Amino acid sequence: MSERIANAALRQKVMSADDAAALIHDGDQIGFGGFTGSGYPKALPGALAKRIQESHDRGEKFTVNVFTGASTAPELDGALAAVDGIGWRMPYQSDPQMRNKINDGTSFYTDIHLSESGMMVRQGFFGNVDFAVIEATRITEDGDVVLTSSVGNNAVYCEVADKIIIEVNSWQSEDLEGMHDIYGGFALPPNRVPIPITHPGDRIGDKFLHIPQNKVVAIIETDGPDRNTPFKPIDDDSRKIAGFLLDFYDNEVKQGRIPKNLLPLQSGVGNIPNAVLDGLLHSDLEHLTSYTEVIQDGMIDLIDAGKLDVASATAFSLSPDYAHKMNENAAFYRDHIILRPQEISNHPEVIRRLGVIGANGMIEADIYGNVNSTHVMGSRMMNGIGGSGDFTRNAYISAFVSPSTAKGGAISAIVPMVSHVDHTEHDGMVIITEQGIADLRGLAPRQRAPKIIENCAHPDFRPMLLDYYERALRDCKFKHTPHLLNEAYSWHTRFLETGTMKLS
Amino acid sequence: MSERIANAALRQKVMSADDAAALIHDGDQIGFGGFTGSGYPKALPGALAKRIQESHDRGEKFTVNVFTGASTAPELDGALAAVDGIGWRMPYQSDPQMRNKINDGTSFYTDIHLSESGMMVRQGFFGNVDFAVIEATRITEDGDVVLTSSVGNNAVYCEVADKIIIEVNSWQSEDLEGMHDIYGGFALPPNRVPIPITHPGDRIGDKFLHIPQNKVVAIIETDGPDRNTPFKPIDDDSRKIAGFLLDFYDNEVKQGRIPKNLLPLQSGVGNIPNAVLDGLLHSDLEHLTSYTEVIQDGMIDLIDAGKLDVASATAFSLSPDYAHKMNENAAFYRDHIILRPQEISNHPEVIRRLGVIGANGMIEADIYGNVNSTHVMGSRMMNGIGGSGDFTRNAYISAFVSPSTAKGGAISAIVPMVSHVDHTEHDGMVIITEQGIADLRGLAPRQRAPKIIENCAHPDFRPMLLDYYERALRDCKFKHTPHLLNEAYSWHTRFLETGTMKLS
Repeated sequence: MSERIANAALRQKVMSADDAAALIHDGDQIGFGGFTGSGYPKALPGALAKRIQESHDRGEKFTVNVFTGASTAPELDGALAAVDGIGWRMPYQSDPQMRNKINDGTSFYTDIHLSESGMMVRQGFFGNVDFAVIEATRITEDGDVVLTSSVGNNAVYCEVADKIIIEVNSWQSEDLEGMHDIYGGFALPPNRVPIPITHPGDRIGDKFLHIPQNKVVAIIETDGPDRNTPFKPIDDDSRKIAGFLLDFYDNEVKQGRIPKNLLPLQSGVGNIPNAVLDGLLHSDLEHLTSYTEVIQDGMIDLIDAGKLDVASATAFSLSPDYAHKMNENAAFYRDHIILRPQEISNHPEVIRRLGVIGANGMIEADIYGNVNSTHVMGSRMMNGIGGSGDFTRNAYISAFVSPSTAKGGAISAIVPMVSHVDHTEHDGMVIITEQGIADLRGLAPRQRAPKIIENCAHPDFRPMLLDYYERALRDCKFKHTPHLLNEAYSWHTRFLETGTMKLS
Repeated sequence: MSERIANAALRQKVMSADDAAALIHDGDQIGFGGFTGSGYPKALPGALAKRIQESHDRGEKFTVNVFTGASTAPELDGALAAVDGIGWRMPYQSDPQMRNKINDGTSFYTDIHLSESGMMVRQGFFGNVDFAVIEATRITEDGDVVLTSSVGNNAVYCEVADKIIIEVNSWQSEDLEGMHDIYGGFALPPNRVPIPITHPGDRIGDKFLHIPQNKVVAIIETDGPDRNTPFKPIDDDSRKIAGFLLDFYDNEVKQGRIPKNLLPLQSGVGNIPNAVLDGLLHSDLEHLTSYTEVIQDGMIDLIDAGKLDVASATAFSLSPDYAHKMNENAAFYRDHIILRPQEISNHPEVIRRLGVIGANGMIEADIYGNVNSTHVMGSRMMNGIGGSGDFTRNAYISAFVSPSTAKGGAISAIVPMVSHVDHTEHDGMVIITEQGIADLRGLAPRQRAPKIIENCAHPDFRPMLLDYYERALRDCKFKHTPHLLNEAYSWHTRFLETGTMKLS
C-alpha cells in the first residue's frame, strides 16, 4: 500500500474503485474535485459509470447529479456522460460527450459563475450533497489532505458532503505540498468577514485541507496523469490580438492609468492567452503578478525568466511537457505559485481590490458591446461562463478577445445582436480581434457601434454591419440603442439555413 | 449672508448662480451631486441652462458632459436637457426631458453600474472633470462640508475636479450633520485595502466631506426642496407581489437558509418596494437591517415602529410629508440611518459579505430568466441599470419583481426572449409577478422555462409562451436553451406594429 497514506485510521479505508462506486446510488449528488482538467479523480468516475451502465442494462434508472470545480476530463465527464449517467451538472464543462448530452436534452446543465458555485452550495441552494470525491497527493499522519494540481471546490464539497471518497494519486508530485492555500474563513452571513488579500502573493490559509475524517468512506489508490493537452504553436491571428492587447496596456501605463509593472493579470486558457504571455516574455516588463484561475505554460516560462514574481490561481492547465516539469520542480515553483479555492481565486471582492486586468475569449460580440461566451447560435451550450463573469465585472480593465471570424470565414464574431448575453454592455470595456481594438470605456451605444464595426469586424462583414447599423439608426424610432428587431438575428438564422452568415 | 457658511475664506466666494454659471464653458465635464432626486444642486443648473440657451441663440455651440450620482430633477436634468445642453451623460437618469433627448439622438448616454461610476472616474477612464457642483447644508469653520440628503459621487467629484462649486441649501436640515459617513480610504490598485464593513451599521469614515478649499470657485446660497414625489397608495398587484416575496423569505427562514431577522434588505424605489416594506411593518419580524441605495417612506415607518435597527444607503427618496418629517427629526433618525458614498452603498465587496437580500424591478424577463431592466422594445432607454446589477450579482438572494403585464395588458412582462439583457441567466435567482413566484436557483434553462411560464406569466400570454417553448423544444436543433431565432422577437415587433403583443 502506498506510503502516501500516513494516517493509520484512513489506511483502513483503502479499497478498489469498484467497491467505492458501489456506495453510490441513483439520485445521489456528488461534488467532484477537478478544475480545467487538473486534479480530478481518475478512477471512481469510471467505476461508477460501469455501475450505472449495469443498472441501465437491467432496466433500472440510475443517474447522479455532478458538481465540480470546472471542466474535468474524459475519465470523469466523458465516462459518466457516455452512459447517460448525469442527470444534472454544474458549474462548467468542456468534454465533448458531456456537451453532446447537454445539447441533445439528456442532461440538465446549470451554468454558474465559478466564484458562486461553492458559495451557493454552502448556502444550501442546491440541496444535500451526498458525496465529495477528491484527489490527494498525500494524506498526512494527522489525516490532513495534500491536494494535487487543483483546489477548485474541494474544500466546500468536503465540508458539506455526507461522505468523502479520496483518491491518492502517486503520479502527482509530493512537492506540491506547500503550494496550496486553503482559506478556512468562509462563513454564512451575517458572520462573513473581509478576505485579507491585498497582494496576489498573500497566503491566508493552510497548506493542508482539513477534512472531517469520520466522513471518509473510501480511499482509492491511483497513478495516472491529468488531462494535459499538448501545446499548439501560436498562430498569426493570436499573435496579432496579443499585440493589440499589449500595446493597449503599454498606452495605459503611458497615460498613468496603471503602474509600470501593470496590475495582476488574469487570462483564460488557449492560444490567444498563450500569445499574450509569450508577448510579455519578450517585453521589457518586470515584476509582473497574476491573479487568475489557471496557470498555463506561458506563466511557467515567465516565472523561469524571472519576470513573473507570483501567480495565484486555483488550478494548472499545462501541456504534458510542462506538467512533467512541474512534477519535477514543484519545490521551486511553490515559491512563485499559490493554488487557492476557486471561491477565492475568483472572488469579486479580491478581484476588484487588486485591480486585476483581465482578458477572456468570446463566441461573439455585437455592435453595442454585448458579449456571448456560452451559446452557439443562441441555443447550443459550448462550455459555460466559467470565471469570465467574475473577472469581467470586477476587473480594473476587462477585454474580450476573438478572431473576427469562425468556420473558415462563414461566421462573423461581430454581429448585429448577440444570440445570448453573458456579459452586458455595462461590463465589457475592450474588444479585440485580429482586425484591431475597440476601447469602449465611457462610450454610449451610438458611439460604440461605429468603432466596433470599423476596428474589429472582418472586412467581409464590415459593410453588412454598417448597413444594418445605418438602417437601424434611420428606421428605429428610438435612437439610444437602434435595432431592427425583425432582422437582428437574420445573420444567425441565415447561418442555420445556409451554413454561412454571408449573403449569397 | 447665511450663517451656514462658517468658514471666513469660503464666505468670500459667495456669488449668484448666474455669476457661477459664467465660469463654465462649452465642452466642460461636470460632476453634479444628486441621487434619486435628493441633494442635487438647485440653482446652478438653471443658470447654466440659461447661459447655454443664450449661446445657442447666438449660434454658438455649447454643451456640457454631465456626471451625477444617479437621477436628479427637473431643475437639473430637465433644465439642461430642455436647451439641448447635455452632450453626454452618465450614469443614471429618470427625467422625462432627459430621456427624450437620449432617445431622439440629441444626447449620448452611458449606462453604468452605480458602484463603478465614481471608481471609473477616479481611474481616469472618462478624462478630466472640470467642475464638481455639490449641495451642502452647512460649511464648518474649518471649511468642511456637511452634505444634505444624498452622498452619491460627491466625494469623488470634489477629489478629481479642477474646480468646485457649492450650493448651501438652507431648506435642508442642519441636523443631517452626523448622518453621513464619508469613507476616505479609496485608493487605486495596487494600494486598495479591504472595506471594513461587517454590519450595515458600521461607520468607517467621517461625518464631513473634506474638500481641497483652494479649488472652490463659487458658493451659491439656495433655499429649495428636493424633488420629493408624492406617495402613491399601494395597489393590489404590488401587494400580491410583496406577499409572494415575504412568504418566500419566510420559507427561507424555515429552511434555515437565512436568519430569523432576515439579512440586510435592499430594494429599488416604487410601489412594489413600498408594499414589501408595508408587509414587513405588519409582520412579526424584528431587528431588521437594510443595506441599500435609497431610504424611502416605508423604511422610516419601520424605524418609527422599532422594527428596523439601521438603514444604510446613499440617499433619501421620500414623499413631501416624509421629507418634512426628516427635516424636523433628523437628529433622531441619524442614529438609525447612515448615508454613504455610492461606491460603498453599492460595493460588490460589501454586498456579498453582508449577504444582502435584494429585490429590483424589471421591464421584462424571458422564459429562461434573462432580465431587461433598461430598454423598452430593445432600443428605448428608460432610466438605466442603476444599482440593480451591483445588488443582483452580489446579493445572497436576488429577486426581480414586476406586474405580469403593462400598457393595459398589451405588453407581457414575460417574453420568449428579452429585447435587451441587463441581468443574465447566471445572475437572477427569483422572478415574481402578481401571478406567482419562480424560484430559479440551481435550475437549468429547460427546468426554468415551464416554471416561469406557469408561475409568472399572465394567463392571457401563458398559452402563447407555452406554444413558443414547445415548438422551440421540438424544432431547435440544440436543446440546452431552445429558441426559434426567427420569431424570438415576434412579440416585440408585433407590439411595435399593432400596439399589442397579443395575436389578433
